Amino acid sequence: MSTDSLSCMSKEVNPESVELCPLGTAAAPEQELLCIFGTGDLGRSLGQRLLQTGYRVVYGSRRPHSCGPLPQGAQVMSHAAAAQSASMVFICVHRVHYNFLEMLAPHLRGKVLVDVSNNLKKNLYQEANAEYLQRLVPGSHVVKGFNTLSAWTLQNGPSDANRQVYLCGNSAEAKQAVAEMATKLGFSVLDRGSLSAARELEDFPLQLFPEWRLPLKLAFGLTAFFFFYLLIRDVIYSYVEKKTDISFRIMVSLANKVFPIVSLIMLSLCYLPGIIAAVLQLYRGTKYRRFPDWLDRWMLCRKQLGLLALGFAFLHVLYTLIIPIRYYVRFKISASTISQIKENKTKEFDTTTAWRTDSYYAVGILGFGLYVLLGISSLPSVSNALSWREFNFIQSKLGYVTLFFCTFHTYLYGWDKFLRPSSYKWYTPSGYMLGLVVPSVVLVLKLLLLVPCVDRSLTRIRQGWERTQPDDDNKTTLLT
Amino acid sequence: MSTDSLSCMSKEVNPESVELCPLGTAAAPEQELLCIFGTGDLGRSLGQRLLQTGYRVVYGSRRPHSCGPLPQGAQVMSHAAAAQSASMVFICVHRVHYNFLEMLAPHLRGKVLVDVSNNLKKNLYQEANAEYLQRLVPGSHVVKGFNTLSAWTLQNGPSDANRQVYLCGNSAEAKQAVAEMATKLGFSVLDRGSLSAARELEDFPLQLFPEWRLPLKLAFGLTAFFFFYLLIRDVIYSYVEKKTDISFRIMVSLANKVFPIVSLIMLSLCYLPGIIAAVLQLYRGTKYRRFPDWLDRWMLCRKQLGLLALGFAFLHVLYTLIIPIRYYVRFKISASTISQIKENKTKEFDTTTAWRTDSYYAVGILGFGLYVLLGISSLPSVSNALSWREFNFIQSKLGYVTLFFCTFHTYLYGWDKFLRPSSYKWYTPSGYMLGLVVPSVVLVLKLLLLVPCVDRSLTRIRQGWERTQPDDDNKTTLLT
Amino acid sequence: MSTDSLSCMSKEVNPESVELCPLGTAAAPEQELLCIFGTGDLGRSLGQRLLQTGYRVVYGSRRPHSCGPLPQGAQVMSHAAAAQSASMVFICVHRVHYNFLEMLAPHLRGKVLVDVSNNLKKNLYQEANAEYLQRLVPGSHVVKGFNTLSAWTLQNGPSDANRQVYLCGNSAEAKQAVAEMATKLGFSVLDRGSLSAARELEDFPLQLFPEWRLPLKLAFGLTAFFFFYLLIRDVIYSYVEKKTDISFRIMVSLANKVFPIVSLIMLSLCYLPGIIAAVLQLYRGTKYRRFPDWLDRWMLCRKQLGLLALGFAFLHVLYTLIIPIRYYVRFKISASTISQIKENKTKEFDTTTAWRTDSYYAVGILGFGLYVLLGISSLPSVSNALSWREFNFIQSKLGYVTLFFCTFHTYLYGWDKFLRPSSYKWYTPSGYMLGLVVPSVVLVLKLLLLVPCVDRSLTRIRQGWERTQPDDDNKTTLLT
Repeated sequence: MSTDSLSCMSKEVNPESVELCPLGTAAAPEQELLCIFGTGDLGRSLGQRLLQTGYRVVYGSRRPHSCGPLPQGAQVMSHAAAAQSASMVFICVHRVHYNFLEMLAPHLRGKVLVDVSNNLKKNLYQEANAEYLQRLVPGSHVVKGFNTLSAWTLQNGPSDANRQVYLCGNSAEAKQAVAEMATKLGFSVLDRGSLSAARELEDFPLQLFPEWRLPLKLAFGLTAFFFFYLLIRDVIYSYVEKKTDISFRIMVSLANKVFPIVSLIMLSLCYLPGIIAAVLQLYRGTKYRRFPDWLDRWMLCRKQLGLLALGFAFLHVLYTLIIPIRYYVRFKISASTISQIKENKTKEFDTTTAWRTDSYYAVGILGFGLYVLLGISSLPSVSNALSWREFNFIQSKLGYVTLFFCTFHTYLYGWDKFLRPSSYKWYTPSGYMLGLVVPSVVLVLKLLLLVPCVDRSLTRIRQGWERTQPDDDNKTTLLT
Repeated sequence: MSTDSLSCMSKEVNPESVELCPLGTAAAPEQELLCIFGTGDLGRSLGQRLLQTGYRVVYGSRRPHSCGPLPQGAQVMSHAAAAQSASMVFICVHRVHYNFLEMLAPHLRGKVLVDVSNNLKKNLYQEANAEYLQRLVPGSHVVKGFNTLSAWTLQNGPSDANRQVYLCGNSAEAKQAVAEMATKLGFSVLDRGSLSAARELEDFPLQLFPEWRLPLKLAFGLTAFFFFYLLIRDVIYSYVEKKTDISFRIMVSLANKVFPIVSLIMLSLCYLPGIIAAVLQLYRGTKYRRFPDWLDRWMLCRKQLGLLALGFAFLHVLYTLIIPIRYYVRFKISASTISQIKENKTKEFDTTTAWRTDSYYAVGILGFGLYVLLGISSLPSVSNALSWREFNFIQSKLGYVTLFFCTFHTYLYGWDKFLRPSSYKWYTPSGYMLGLVVPSVVLVLKLLLLVPCVDRSLTRIRQGWERTQPDDDNKTTLLT
Repeated sequence: MSTDSLSCMSKEVNPESVELCPLGTAAAPEQELLCIFGTGDLGRSLGQRLLQTGYRVVYGSRRPHSCGPLPQGAQVMSHAAAAQSASMVFICVHRVHYNFLEMLAPHLRGKVLVDVSNNLKKNLYQEANAEYLQRLVPGSHVVKGFNTLSAWTLQNGPSDANRQVYLCGNSAEAKQAVAEMATKLGFSVLDRGSLSAARELEDFPLQLFPEWRLPLKLAFGLTAFFFFYLLIRDVIYSYVEKKTDISFRIMVSLANKVFPIVSLIMLSLCYLPGIIAAVLQLYRGTKYRRFPDWLDRWMLCRKQLGLLALGFAFLHVLYTLIIPIRYYVRFKISASTISQIKENKTKEFDTTTAWRTDSYYAVGILGFGLYVLLGISSLPSVSNALSWREFNFIQSKLGYVTLFFCTFHTYLYGWDKFLRPSSYKWYTPSGYMLGLVVPSVVLVLKLLLLVPCVDRSLTRIRQGWERTQPDDDNKTTLLT
């Protein structure tokens, strides 16, 4: 019966034999019988969903007469009998119990086995569960799939983050059959190739933002450092030296100093590894040697660094925009107006200050606009729609322009305070001065790399040219 | 001729016979002939596009000699003759006229029939149009497709929302042939499995934000209620009791009270159904019983509720940020400064107020930042890139943190006004007090569910454990 | 050996013969041997990556003994010997050198040839490189692919914008084999159909925002025009007539006039072509005649026009929100308060002004909110999730509402200044008056098209009705 179904599938390829297996029957798939090995939570959830979609379900169990409650309408049999009755078998047991399948191998010959298993942690076994299963039952067609779904989704059907089912397997027909079943359950199927992709699929549900960890740690570290640094320089300094309590400034004023500094540093850290890589390539005179591991890891988390930097910039913008609503600011402005009247001396309008502050705001806004553009272009659906030349243009060219605007914005903020001794309370530089170090270095190095003769060497190296003579030809090539 | 073409397709599967059907011919597909049944708008639009792409087109018509204007270059024949000449036939007639195809069945044997039809409304027929067509012409290979495109797109080629073509059908070869044709027309093809998916495809173009209706109604209802409630409490109260006309406050001040309240309530309504579900599961002692329908529907529109809430929060932010530019606000501040001078008494700076208001702003901004993060992670391309563990972390963990921040922001706004009798004009509570009820309840219930012993029970239930004894084993399982 | 591998692939189709080609071997693909023709940068980068992934690599070279440094572990042979040893051959040579492959045709019979080549510019050759290759080696199965990746990505594996590999080819098996290999390298594969799509794939890496050029030029032109227009009217007028230097206003005040004007004009230019098209269809009485080329081009860049308009609106919002922090504004407010006290006359609160300015802000914010909504719905992943009815509703209905809000916002800004002679410095109208011309025209024309009798005619035309008699029937149809 099961082989009929499979051979029917393959015979569809041959147009002359279509009548032998009338296509019309596929239009009434409600009677199709699927088999589930395992009566645990996963097996029950899956069975319930399959029954609701119109399939018939038979469970395979070691103790068919005492296997606990099963979904209404499902049958239960011995493993061998259940396998015999269906062409597709879901393996809903833990990997450690797979060995019983070896004995069932004759009954599973030619069947499609769907391995839905996951491991508790990464690299627990050398071989993927699905590959192990294929090795145990070589005559079957193992398809890995559904393991990226939660049990909740298996029971209740697709939801937002759970619309996609990844499949892999060595038999195209088996995958096609599983894909059609998954489509009927309401999922959209992504074929990930042969069974060798199973390990990747099994690792997927275990990950929790692995590529965000390093950038997040860095962001926390920088935020904490600058928070305490500024706390000491601003609040504690004022308390110790001037005996005034300005601790209320922590919530907004201090935060609004920390956020832009961290944002700027993290943005520049997106571009630093690219510059280090270029310097390394220039130094080595070849692009064919791998970068050190730390540099590789750093380059792989540039996107996350940039997005976190954008988040901090976003907070900086909002914190800045609420400034004029703040009680403290309104009080100060009102007090200044009153004192001007009482002392009867009006301040003169200073055109230079107007130019400087307005430029400061304008450059900041333009920088933030570009920042947002960088963020949008890193959305998966947007970056997929770009050619790499376009993506490169935005992330690299526009990225450096963004970095330049933001750095310039900070220099305009500093203006002449760099030279004022009063800026160096307790002999420490202001926070924004520390924040300017890395971005300034990155911009200067980038300018050096753009010097024509340097740029020309680098371009040649990146096109495959090597400075060293290929005298070690015989070492690297192995003639047969 | 048509069978040649199909068998060629199938023979490609067999590498030995490749030479019989030289691959080179596929590189010159300009001469390929496609047939269209129906000379209405859809047929003409499609034909025009096919001709422009380089295909030859033959129309099948009941009255080939008087069937109205057809695209330049197309032929027209009787249905039988047209079908004979091509291997692929587009059915561009309404379902009600399909019956004539039954008589043409011998001529359509082995042909690929592309059903592009749509219905005028949902559930008009029990059977999908394409399945009906397959039943009428069982010897053909029916492929459903192109029906999600507008006639405009069929005529003018893909545009932004019309780049994707969904296909389904029982024959993989037929689908492959249609997919290649669609790719040549410039579309990207998504295979939705067997013909049983046809109904879903036919329903797709008819929908207009079905999942947004309930949340939109709720948003309108809440907005209207709070608008009139606050209109009475603020504007009419002031007019009646104080004889002052502050109706100008409707445009910004009143709106800026309504928006945050509605936003907060809708955000908490995203999390309430999850809590109700948890309580139900705890009460029932099992996760295998379906939730009531209203709860299911509610859970399915949580994303939309959240996005609308985010929209209201976005408006709240903008309305808040323009406060200091407003004429009314500037007038009031200036008047306050003038009166301070005239009465010659300066207000003292109040550190507590500074702390409170700054905290209020800071918490609000952080809440909004998380809100935006939730919104971004619900973009399809972003949520597809997340594993469900990650999606769950963002939408659930971060979601509750967001709700907490926003609720706390509102409590800070209230501060000591909860106890002031003057807050209760006409014995009614302020708008924000009403707005705090649902979020506070949700947060308290969530805290209760996090109590270790409750949490443990819930986890066990969600892993498949059931409180009731499985003594009803024999009822649910049916041994064969 | 290579034919074995291919026939194995095809035999998998036949379930009875599965044992002849044990599936288990696919689970150990480390030993699979791939061949690369060409030892240039591309060939070396690709080879390095393949070796790292676990493949064995053999290079085919004209001078196997002196072909420069190759990745560690790779073999090098003559072209014929290398081709003989593998079933898949990467062609990493330039198209101009393809002719040598013609002589190798017997050795390449039945092999999968992967054409990774790109051209230096578009339309250099009439035939796509891959199609030319297929013509040269007709017995092989040419698959186009990997050409959209940078050499960097080929060497280092997928990164953000480089996760997708587009494939096309006439043989499904060949494509499947290449797809599995690509999946193993970590890419996700998109099948673009038959080899006739090769030209499109080869053009893809060459493009740099082609559809953005016209909108960007327009945006730059409009920005420059309004900048200089307002510079003359504001700064230079003030300098010449009043001898005051207000040049500091360039950075924020002037920019904040230019941005909203350009944004409004560009938004209305999104909707103007649709109106022109409707008028043309009404005038011609048919929808089956093509639009003039300029109109087609204009319609194709509406999305880009709209997104640029959104960008300008975004800048306008930020420039507006920083107004109250500006030194100039604070100075002016303080000065006005001081002068009120000194002259001892308080301004009266004007309810009309309060109403007008608050409405002005509220309408602007709502317009911007809708603007952002339009922008979000044009993200690829969002618009793909919409049916065209939904997309049409947002982009057309909501689009006109947005345009109306933004135009109304500008009229509220103008208010009674339209009639004040002082607005017409040097007899020129204000910038915003110029900016209102196009949007007003678009809105009025749209209203005219919504008049029932006009709307009815247009609907009939768009459903395929034609005003002219189909007396030219014989001209357009060609009976056989």
